[in-house]
Amino acid sequence: MNQTFIRTDGRSCDQGRPVQIIRHFTKYAQGSVLIKTGETTVLCSAMIDETVPSFMRGEERGWVTAEYNMLPSSTKTRKKRDRNGKTDSRSVEIQRLIGRSLRSIIDLNKLGERTIKIDCDVLQADGGTRTASITGAFVALYDAVQWLLDRKIIEENPINSFVASISVGIFKDMPILDLCYEEDSQAIVDMNVVMNDKGEFIEIQGTGEQRPFSHKELEALLSLAKEGIEFLISEQKNALGIK
Amino acid sequence: MNQTFIRTDGRSCDQGRPVQIIRHFTKYAQGSVLIKTGETTVLCSAMIDETVPSFMRGEERGWVTAEYNMLPSSTKTRKKRDRNGKTDSRSVEIQRLIGRSLRSIIDLNKLGERTIKIDCDVLQADGGTRTASITGAFVALYDAVQWLLDRKIIEENPINSFVASISVGIFKDMPILDLCYEEDSQAIVDMNVVMNDKGEFIEIQGTGEQRPFSHKELEALLSLAKEGIEFLISEQKNALGIK
Amino acid sequence: MNQTFIRTDGRSCDQGRPVQIIRHFTKYAQGSVLIKTGETTVLCSAMIDETVPSFMRGEERGWVTAEYNMLPSSTKTRKKRDRNGKTDSRSVEIQRLIGRSLRSIIDLNKLGERTIKIDCDVLQADGGTRTASITGAFVALYDAVQWLLDRKIIEENPINSFVASISVGIFKDMPILDLCYEEDSQAIVDMNVVMNDKGEFIEIQGTGEQRPFSHKELEALLSLAKEGIEFLISEQKNALGIK
Amino acid sequence: MNQTFIRTDGRSCDQGRPVQIIRHFTKYAQGSVLIKTGETTVLCSAMIDETVPSFMRGEERGWVTAEYNMLPSSTKTRKKRDRNGKTDSRSVEIQRLIGRSLRSIIDLNKLGERTIKIDCDVLQADGGTRTASITGAFVALYDAVQWLLDRKIIEENPINSFVASISVGIFKDMPILDLCYEEDSQAIVDMNVVMNDKGEFIEIQGTGEQRPFSHKELEALLSLAKEGIEFLISEQKNALGIK
Amino acid sequence: MNQTFIRTDGRSCDQGRPVQIIRHFTKYAQGSVLIKTGETTVLCSAMIDETVPSFMRGEERGWVTAEYNMLPSSTKTRKKRDRNGKTDSRSVEIQRLIGRSLRSIIDLNKLGERTIKIDCDVLQADGGTRTASITGAFVALYDAVQWLLDRKIIEENPINSFVASISVGIFKDMPILDLCYEEDSQAIVDMNVVMNDKGEFIEIQGTGEQRPFSHKELEALLSLAKEGIEFLISEQKNALGIK
Amino acid sequence: MNQTFIRTDGRSCDQGRPVQIIRHFTKYAQGSVLIKTGETTVLCSAMIDETVPSFMRGEERGWVTAEYNMLPSSTKTRKKRDRNGKTDSRSVEIQRLIGRSLRSIIDLNKLGERTIKIDCDVLQADGGTRTASITGAFVALYDAVQWLLDRKIIEENPINSFVASISVGIFKDMPILDLCYEEDSQAIVDMNVVMNDKGEFIEIQGTGEQRPFSHKELEALLSLAKEGIEFLISEQKNALGIK
Repeated sequence: MNQTFIRTDGRSCDQGRPVQIIRHFTKYAQGSVLIKTGETTVLCSAMIDETVPSFMRGEERGWVTAEYNMLPSSTKTRKKRDRNGKTDSRSVEIQRLIGRSLRSIIDLNKLGERTIKIDCDVLQADGGTRTASITGAFVALYDAVQWLLDRKIIEENPINSFVASISVGIFKDMPILDLCYEEDSQAIVDMNVVMNDKGEFIEIQGTGEQRPFSHKELEALLSLAKEGIEFLISEQKNALGIK
Repeated sequence: MNQTFIRTDGRSCDQGRPVQIIRHFTKYAQGSVLIKTGETTVLCSAMIDETVPSFMRGEERGWVTAEYNMLPSSTKTRKKRDRNGKTDSRSVEIQRLIGRSLRSIIDLNKLGERTIKIDCDVLQADGGTRTASITGAFVALYDAVQWLLDRKIIEENPINSFVASISVGIFKDMPILDLCYEEDSQAIVDMNVVMNDKGEFIEIQGTGEQRPFSHKELEALLSLAKEGIEFLISEQKNALGIK
Repeated sequence: MNQTFIRTDGRSCDQGRPVQIIRHFTKYAQGSVLIKTGETTVLCSAMIDETVPSFMRGEERGWVTAEYNMLPSSTKTRKKRDRNGKTDSRSVEIQRLIGRSLRSIIDLNKLGERTIKIDCDVLQADGGTRTASITGAFVALYDAVQWLLDRKIIEENPINSFVASISVGIFKDMPILDLCYEEDSQAIVDMNVVMNDKGEFIEIQGTGEQRPFSHKELEALLSLAKEGIEFLISEQKNALGIK
Repeated sequence: MNQTFIRTDGRSCDQGRPVQIIRHFTKYAQGSVLIKTGETTVLCSAMIDETVPSFMRGEERGWVTAEYNMLPSSTKTRKKRDRNGKTDSRSVEIQRLIGRSLRSIIDLNKLGERTIKIDCDVLQADGGTRTASITGAFVALYDAVQWLLDRKIIEENPINSFVASISVGIFKDMPILDLCYEEDSQAIVDMNVVMNDKGEFIEIQGTGEQRPFSHKELEALLSLAKEGIEFLISEQKNALGIK
Repeated sequence: MNQTFIRTDGRSCDQGRPVQIIRHFTKYAQGSVLIKTGETTVLCSAMIDETVPSFMRGEERGWVTAEYNMLPSSTKTRKKRDRNGKTDSRSVEIQRLIGRSLRSIIDLNKLGERTIKIDCDVLQADGGTRTASITGAFVALYDAVQWLLDRKIIEENPINSFVASISVGIFKDMPILDLCYEEDSQAIVDMNVVMNDKGEFIEIQGTGEQRPFSHKELEALLSLAKEGIEFLISEQKNALGIK
Repeated sequence: MNQTFIRTDGRSCDQGRPVQIIRHFTKYAQGSVLIKTGETTVLCSAMIDETVPSFMRGEERGWVTAEYNMLPSSTKTRKKRDRNGKTDSRSVEIQRLIGRSLRSIIDLNKLGERTIKIDCDVLQADGGTRTASITGAFVALYDAVQWLLDRKIIEENPINSFVASISVGIFKDMPILDLCYEEDSQAIVDMNVVMNDKGEFIEIQGTGEQRPFSHKELEALLSLAKEGIEFLISEQKNALGIK
């Protein structure tokens, strides 16, 4: 039965979408990355701000924070801008996830008393915008940190490991990797996994959208995610020219 | 080494806090539950609104939505109210989780075209407010549904299973169950698990706060959570007089 | 005619509702009081903040400020939260009254350069929430001041007198004391009176809701209020163990 | 001692300020009144809106609502505009008072299903802006109602009586009438009284700003207010050409 | 054909409306001007604030900023107040224009480190409120600057030239000067011109509302504007007693 | 003297920057254009919405509206997002200009009762973002209209003419075309011109930033703008494959 299963875009269950990581996409941000995962396109910027939030002043530690936003034209039906003073609650949840994921792989003490502000602006959304944001934002962060190292503003590299993220889910009762929008909107279980380059978990967020899921299904999903993230980290390294 | 390990409040690693579930705490809400988990106290209300959000009108399906809020006096340092037009981003994340968890165990078609609005107001916070909110809110929801059944407004019970939630985490490199605030603030890994009464997962949210975590650690945490949730569901049943 | 007059809950015209004052209801606030007046239930907290508003800095005087809020489940029809950036105008009016009433009986010079923040959160509303808030908040303020005195943070008690508040009104052309919600919603004249323990007025707010009222009616209402407040102050003293 | 007492602007204790009521001050509003009480200047407009708030639709009753605002240049130190989405809490309190006062003397059934919107914009503030607003707004409302009667849009005059308002207070331990800003800012007790032309009370709001006040003082203040309001109503009648 | 052309209020094409400039209209602002252009009435205030915006601190330069607002009763249909936290976008555009126009004729270095805040509050709108605001605000600014010079707070007059503004437009294919509301709402081309007393341009804003306009039409409009502004500046000088 | 004058990027005074217009940049919008003018990069989208604003319902006319936004990473110093409920006042001014410009060349009656929503999101800002937005948005609008014509949703092309926009200014006393950011920030006079393909004006907005400007200077600037816009319209035609 499995072999006759057809995904909406013809991929096999354990096949991720092609990834493209373009560095230096804009000129002002110290790190500027356009990441494409299939048709999902996110502009990830990392800008250095030589201050920290007031609650951290004097602690000689840095901070990494993230904002996530979808452009109005990024979705099939135009998405209204967040101009009424309320940030879309889904965006709030996502930008908190991006921030946590990046802070988990950076030593804030080594960053010095400055903030790296990550902006993930979705130009085109076709599923997996939050995971693409994390994967792309890591490369932007890497470039921004390198900018500081090159100018000897900081001496030691504060980045401890690579981090990337991918979605997995149960679609028509099959565990699949890297869901596109059509799959995502029909998924029975939806899970986003963030891992480092040692195969350890940084964040797991799994939701039974249409039904609960068993421990065995969880294992199958985590196994798919692990392979997917290994591939993404190799793509990050290619883009950065690291072997 | 394990046996000499002392938790901040003297519990053993796999020991949850005492739970108290008081029904009919206030008189207007169809379901009104005060839940205490150790010193964490949450007032969970379920109120029936005979309308649905505009995007669902005419679909003959119901809706369940949740709001989460901490009272200013619920925390050690007074928490400012959300009156500037921005809901605290942590609250947004939590109330989305509560809503998803409750919707996962209710058949919205059987609820009819009405909304059950859940309010979780934290009176005292000592760790685990979101998990206590889910556990208490389920009982409030149960009572509100019963109110509808008693009045024959709906005919069939739309609730499919019980749902409860608990936190687990890694504290001083040991997996522990049901973290109090002091433990939570120092936890290396923090995870919230939502399960039903069949031992299936509804939601898993795990974060490596201070370091990533291995697959083996994940397994230990899920195992603790499963036991904790079994106990909570038995307490829910006691409160509801179900054997 | 008077003797055949029946109030909605069977009380006589000059009869207040039973009052219950529970101190130390939560653990973080220096003063935490749950007050019940009939079915009206308000959680009143007093928390000490070691700063003052910017316009008072350096004046070596303290400040007392209040916030009033109704929980969504406190009313028959769920009350929307103030999350759109506009505080409900009725709440604004009430919290200004609570703040003024408490500041009137405290010597801000003796309080030192710190703020006591009062929060009145209505858990259940059945008429008289603003007057119950003042009566309960005074006890919370008293406890917070005692907390400062016990730790010798201040030397002299800044509280000059007790303060309590009650509603009076004209209902079916009869002056009555302590209106419940049903009476309040039909009252011809509605008046809230705040007095100290010397029988002096701190605030009078009287409104002819359905018709104007005469000087003679005013006198009858103030006389009822005076008796009601004497009783409330004796209850405050009981709760505080003061004879 | 009384005879040597000098008020800040040389008036005797029971002397109000000169009043000027200019009708038809602007051309679009059906009622447009500029009222000057001493140096306090308020533009009061009454505009007819042929709808009612949604909660009143179909009831065949009208509504009267008021907004109060101080122009930035109306005060000694420029007053910031309410453009951040929060209406100044003092303004909220005042506009609720103006609305209640005007609704108390109008039969909303006779007004028909329409709203009269009152706007009180303070051009220059020198104490007593809320009481001048009520006194002036009544004349604007009168003109707007006359406009409806003249066009036979309504048949019966819905206005039951005149209404006016004045402030009284205790200043240097003396009860005085119609406080200017300098007196108001130093008043021991501050009271605003709204009365009709039968000498009945519509609203009393008295606050012990610096100390509580006795029943005897209350009587003295109400007596001053009564005389002051009689004079104001005679001025309203003069302006309207009613003998 | 031109000679038979009749404007809505009977003026000839190159005829402006009568102008009235009343200084010292209110007492607190250092400059307070009521300007009437036909039926358009604007209260223009200039208030001195002894601070500058934070981004200018320490630069020993001053600042001039403007706010524009229409009173609810200034328009035929009541205009809602900007109380929802969003300033009306038209008002934003206008107040930026007023601020730029006034800053263009003042030497901010000579003003010293202080801000002059201009408020233009429209009491009655009949076309040309933005141009009347500029023309009136200049006189208020002039008075505020004179106030500083009189008290020797500044030594040198920072005002370089007079500035005034007028609207021109194409109405029924004819270029006309100083459009009233009825003309403005039907204008084919609408242009606001700001000039100084040397006949130089400070700002030109021209919009083809119903059709584009040719270079020749532009010339005709600018020529009308030049004459109109010359007249307005002579009226400003009359009001200020400058020959 | 003119021949020795050097612009910041080496261009001659009447030389515009290279323009690149990429159509179909994203897949959901009916018109999606990435326009680059030198280093200024704007994503212009046109999305069709089958409704009109409520004030236009039933009129059988369409509407074109625009929103303008700068991405946080588009500027040298990170630009804060408009998430506090206030749209940046400069953005408001610009998006009103874009909307007016596009509505001027389209027959809203022929568009039918639908809205075309234009979004101009600046990815990189180096001067002239508003003029690039208009020039690019026209192409996106053209494509969206074509999309409607292709599907025979409308029958007649509602677009009357091409429209494009460019900036001109006086820099070091020389009139120059198409200012980059560095020139713009030092410009003495700054002017944005919107024209159609017949050489007629749609909008002129000129500001004397540092000094007023003469009629002769105005003529020089308009002449430069005319040439620049002719070139831009030829580029629009190239991109659209129209000869």
